[in-house]
Amino acid sequence: MDLIYTLDLVGTFVFAISGMLTAANKRFDLFGGAVIALVTAVGGGSVRDVLIGATPVGWMQDTNYLWVIGGGAAFGYLFQAYILKLRRTMFLFDTIGIGLFTILGLNKALSFGVSPSVAVLMGTVSAVFGGVIRDMLCNVEPLIFRGEIYATACMAGALLFLFLQQLSLPYNWAVVVTVSFIIILRILAVRFHWGLPHVEIKDRKG
Amino acid sequence: MDLIYTLDLVGTFVFAISGMLTAANKRFDLFGGAVIALVTAVGGGSVRDVLIGATPVGWMQDTNYLWVIGGGAAFGYLFQAYILKLRRTMFLFDTIGIGLFTILGLNKALSFGVSPSVAVLMGTVSAVFGGVIRDMLCNVEPLIFRGEIYATACMAGALLFLFLQQLSLPYNWAVVVTVSFIIILRILAVRFHWGLPHVEIKDRKG
Amino acid sequence: MDLIYTLDLVGTFVFAISGMLTAANKRFDLFGGAVIALVTAVGGGSVRDVLIGATPVGWMQDTNYLWVIGGGAAFGYLFQAYILKLRRTMFLFDTIGIGLFTILGLNKALSFGVSPSVAVLMGTVSAVFGGVIRDMLCNVEPLIFRGEIYATACMAGALLFLFLQQLSLPYNWAVVVTVSFIIILRILAVRFHWGLPHVEIKDRKG
Repeated sequence: MDLIYTLDLVGTFVFAISGMLTAANKRFDLFGGAVIALVTAVGGGSVRDVLIGATPVGWMQDTNYLWVIGGGAAFGYLFQAYILKLRRTMFLFDTIGIGLFTILGLNKALSFGVSPSVAVLMGTVSAVFGGVIRDMLCNVEPLIFRGEIYATACMAGALLFLFLQQLSLPYNWAVVVTVSFIIILRILAVRFHWGLPHVEIKDRKG
Repeated sequence: MDLIYTLDLVGTFVFAISGMLTAANKRFDLFGGAVIALVTAVGGGSVRDVLIGATPVGWMQDTNYLWVIGGGAAFGYLFQAYILKLRRTMFLFDTIGIGLFTILGLNKALSFGVSPSVAVLMGTVSAVFGGVIRDMLCNVEPLIFRGEIYATACMAGALLFLFLQQLSLPYNWAVVVTVSFIIILRILAVRFHWGLPHVEIKDRKG
Repeated sequence: MDLIYTLDLVGTFVFAISGMLTAANKRFDLFGGAVIALVTAVGGGSVRDVLIGATPVGWMQDTNYLWVIGGGAAFGYLFQAYILKLRRTMFLFDTIGIGLFTILGLNKALSFGVSPSVAVLMGTVSAVFGGVIRDMLCNVEPLIFRGEIYATACMAGALLFLFLQQLSLPYNWAVVVTVSFIIILRILAVRFHWGLPHVEIKDRKG
């Protein structure tokens, strides 16, 4: 459980950095950047907790999250140029983050008595909705809707995790296998330009 | 009650289609389209449930909603060109949908102990806020704020429904009368170009 | 306590006016303007209440808020040109409003058992998030992220208030001192063009 908690904080840290970098792109002030960092890191989990009725929402119950987010925001502010060179490392941490957030969100939703299909959705929401709110606050179209395999990887991972639990694989192993699966899926998707088909208004003559 | 449940699912189906079509207009990917379909269909009810404290929110408690939304999204994706020809049918179903959503939302809010005026607002939110969130996620200005009689029809319907309950009209009859009223109001509004006055910054010389 | 309740309603009134004026700028219809007025006035407190689990959210429990918001929206609609000349008065009332909203939000969050640092955040959210949602609904970039000392003043005020409570200053005095502090801070910030540094993507040569 300690490993998972640590990785959860790592994911939170990386999300906070990504929020600060998006705010930098829009020339927000420092306070705005900190808010975007916070929202990116805890937005998904907050939406999940509010929808399932787990209030006060999770990050309010453990001040470590605020410290880690403050650290991530400061790190993102101070080392922008440096971070942009570390794209691969960031990609890896981000993918570990969404993988873990998916599983933790899935489990929390199940523990509040929703059905497995809703829990899969809530796991995905935990992982990706922080980024969606970040993009809404920055007034850009949400990145996740534009064809990369991202939320889809979370959803596939959540289904795999449920399946592994069904096989009574121990919790920690199921976490490791699922997160590895999500990482491999995303690496393959980026390398081979996998993407979902776009929804387009088709030619109306037909 | 069975009729109302069926109509509720019909409204959900139509809202899911409208979400998928909006996503198509913005060239989102298939996953994005499915998310927009879901949010359009359940967003209004979720906002209401979260504000009044009815969690886990309603659609999580009955998996039929997810199936109907999945069906609506698939239908919207496959038959785009066809649906665009069925505008009148869609308009009718959409209006039935918002009429029912208004009444169901109003009743749910009342059952959580809020005042009638707040319940009227919550009924309207149930009906129209899914569309508002859809438009926010797609980064377009919310349609409902631009002068058509839409949310106003819901609000008028909610007031009428409260009044009919006051007269102790049986529930099902009150539903039928209210939904018919909303449909007629919307048809008249569209035919005769009724609209609310725009709010404008007036000439500052005066 | 009576004075504070009155000032709370004054703040609500001013926020409703500011919502209506923003809607006017975007040429929304009258209903849209009323919704924006409502959301501007109660959005921040609603987000706070939903996150800490205080549902039904606060403004639903006291119909005076709806009346005051309706009054503010009507006032904003009828006296637009006049209000634009009263900018200084509006600025003062707005600042009193955010000051009070900060303190009331801080106290409510504390009474739901969150830590002081989270309560400071929730106080700030109460004060500024109505404006953020207003700007999101109107599809403009949130004003508060663009470098004025606004949310920062709320946060500083919340910290000061916690400190004064620590010194066991009576509640009413602590409120007066904190609100005065926020007002003075904002006046100085506007007069001397104080602002937070912008977050920018730095030159990448370094």
